[in-house]
Amino acid sequence: MSSTVVMKFGGTSVADAGRLKGAAARIVAKREAGHRVVAVLSARGKETDRLIADAQEVSPHPDPREMDMLLSTGERVSCALCAMAINDLGHRAISLTGSQAGIVTDTSHTKARILDVRADRIMSALDDDSIVLVAGFQGVSTAKDVTTLGRGGSDTTAVALAAAVGADVCEIYTDVAGVFSADPRIVPDARKLAVVSFDEMLEMSASGAGVLQLRSVEYARNHGVRIHCRSSFEDAPGTVIVSEEETVEHPLITAVTHSTGEARVTLLGVPDTPGIAGRVTTALADANVNIDMIIQNEPVSEGARADMSFTVPRDDVTAAQIALDPIASEHGISVVADPAMGKVSIVGAGMKSHPGVAAKVFRTLGEQEINIEMISTSSIRISCVVQGDRVPDAVRALHSAFELAGPDTIRPEQPFGEFA
Amino acid sequence: MSSTVVMKFGGTSVADAGRLKGAAARIVAKREAGHRVVAVLSARGKETDRLIADAQEVSPHPDPREMDMLLSTGERVSCALCAMAINDLGHRAISLTGSQAGIVTDTSHTKARILDVRADRIMSALDDDSIVLVAGFQGVSTAKDVTTLGRGGSDTTAVALAAAVGADVCEIYTDVAGVFSADPRIVPDARKLAVVSFDEMLEMSASGAGVLQLRSVEYARNHGVRIHCRSSFEDAPGTVIVSEEETVEHPLITAVTHSTGEARVTLLGVPDTPGIAGRVTTALADANVNIDMIIQNEPVSEGARADMSFTVPRDDVTAAQIALDPIASEHGISVVADPAMGKVSIVGAGMKSHPGVAAKVFRTLGEQEINIEMISTSSIRISCVVQGDRVPDAVRALHSAFELAGPDTIRPEQPFGEFA
Repeated sequence: MSSTVVMKFGGTSVADAGRLKGAAARIVAKREAGHRVVAVLSARGKETDRLIADAQEVSPHPDPREMDMLLSTGERVSCALCAMAINDLGHRAISLTGSQAGIVTDTSHTKARILDVRADRIMSALDDDSIVLVAGFQGVSTAKDVTTLGRGGSDTTAVALAAAVGADVCEIYTDVAGVFSADPRIVPDARKLAVVSFDEMLEMSASGAGVLQLRSVEYARNHGVRIHCRSSFEDAPGTVIVSEEETVEHPLITAVTHSTGEARVTLLGVPDTPGIAGRVTTALADANVNIDMIIQNEPVSEGARADMSFTVPRDDVTAAQIALDPIASEHGISVVADPAMGKVSIVGAGMKSHPGVAAKVFRTLGEQEINIEMISTSSIRISCVVQGDRVPDAVRALHSAFELAGPDTIRPEQPFGEFA
Repeated sequence: MSSTVVMKFGGTSVADAGRLKGAAARIVAKREAGHRVVAVLSARGKETDRLIADAQEVSPHPDPREMDMLLSTGERVSCALCAMAINDLGHRAISLTGSQAGIVTDTSHTKARILDVRADRIMSALDDDSIVLVAGFQGVSTAKDVTTLGRGGSDTTAVALAAAVGADVCEIYTDVAGVFSADPRIVPDARKLAVVSFDEMLEMSASGAGVLQLRSVEYARNHGVRIHCRSSFEDAPGTVIVSEEETVEHPLITAVTHSTGEARVTLLGVPDTPGIAGRVTTALADANVNIDMIIQNEPVSEGARADMSFTVPRDDVTAAQIALDPIASEHGISVVADPAMGKVSIVGAGMKSHPGVAAKVFRTLGEQEINIEMISTSSIRISCVVQGDRVPDAVRALHSAFELAGPDTIRPEQPFGEFA
């Protein structure tokens, strides 16, 4: 039996009729090369935003079940149009909704998790020599309602299908050429990485590299799905994400990532009462505010008050302040927000066996007179919160200090829309 | 158990956020009056046209299966948005796709016929005190593919659901106030009809009254579903369509209908050979050209040639000419088309028991010096093909001759977009 390939095309790759036909041509070329092909498509361009705007015009807080019914139409449109284009190229293609494709999820509308993939219908269509197009980002719940998987869910659909049909590779086509050693818009000599391990990619996605959605990488790692992240607009290979055992070399540092959408919230004068930190984090969790880093200055003497700082996505600052208001009033705590923060991170599996990386990071930023406000680390990542306007300098300095530039640099005409 | 009402809203009734909320308010009012409510919605305004344009940009002859997958999204969007609006009004509403609503069709994509309605899910949602919104115009085929029911299919969805759930009435909301004794754009004193029989409505729909789709009226007659055709924008009752036994009075003539999209095709010099007429009609049927009227002049002497004329929709003239070309060449027949024809009809159940109606029609048109080119009749209808530019005069003359104007005339501010 010939090999099976899952190909996923993002919204910019199917945005207009020309690009959609381009995706169709790529899919057909893969089929003609002898592979069985399952393709997962996102909604076209700004279609999802348009549907969200329609909903907001009708309802201030749209019902989540109905939001899923609404948003799931975008990917169906892409798939139906692409199937038409493929049929015109002389190949048989059928489009399937997430439900028809057997993507079974839990009932958490707008952020459902995949419970099972029942790929019988896909398999029989492949056996029937058809190209199968699947609407990304969606499934059917155990209550038989349409669900969506949340932002970037189409990547997860593609990886889940690749696992279910036993695909050799899950190719993620985007408008960037692969995964880079840093954002090429900030570091012009950033290198396209040939291979990245799952663990590195997870840390990179979590710390700001926008090219792959975090959950899809987790799913791929858990199910051993090989991801190939590449450009829709050129034929050169992109970046392959594989298990650590498959990566031949372990460079000390693989990439510098960053984000500029951070805010810091500081609680001044927190009393030394047991349970206050727990109440703070619970209040934020109840308000759906994700805390990234958190630090607390121990009070200098018994009975004195402490300060507590944490970072949250900038868009959540107001929600965080509202959520903390009752606790702050009750205990006489002042809440101060600094919305213009950023974060720069270095990621590399080789870091584990090389002490001294952290020291080099701090020294490098120090030489640039960039103040480090907060720090967090994992075994293969070091992240520093800095003032937002210093992020580009910090990224360039670290990229240079760890000598990440290389021969496989990006070409200047390449667009970077989905990066970061 | 309280009564169940099916309400159907057309595309203009949900075209923007304001109208959509208006439909939601009407649905909620019906629920608050104590009825169980199933509402069927069409795609918003020009949404279907937009999707068709998208398809045509990608493919000159879009695959019918994929066309159905594409077009079915429009009604889903309407239903999801309306459900949000209803939930905001404090009532529980869920939207269902045609498939979820149990509309099972054959596999004729783009013009599927309903085979069965498995309304269990609707019934349990109604029992659960929910308002149920169903995406019109669509179903799921016996091959588990999404299908659409063709133009005006949402009316058929509504009537089929009304039959399946045992609704007391199927209310069809449009942008006209009901069914009129003639198109009010042509006859300003046309009367809104309180009651029309199924048979009359069938003849009216078939002969040009655009307010209700022919198939939906057939379905209603076959399943005994009472239809109430009324305005989305006012509360006055519209027109009720019921079985003939339920109509209390039988006026001689109920309405004058017309169409201006007719063309006449004439075959000159048809040899007196057996089977020629059959070949002509078969060729047209194979080309999907619907013939309305057909007449043949008998040859004056044995061996002489005859002429044959028929009417087709104006848009099909070219297809008809292409389809007839081989027969015409083979037998030396000339094909002449007159694309500017129209048709005026009078419909009335009382006609059956009153001879002399036809004579009055011919006399009335003759007094206006309107030439009758072709005639066809049923037991309750007389149709005359006339030159297209004389249609308005013919409608006005017949409306006046049969004294159809009445007290229940239309108000001048009423829009007539969906009429004709």
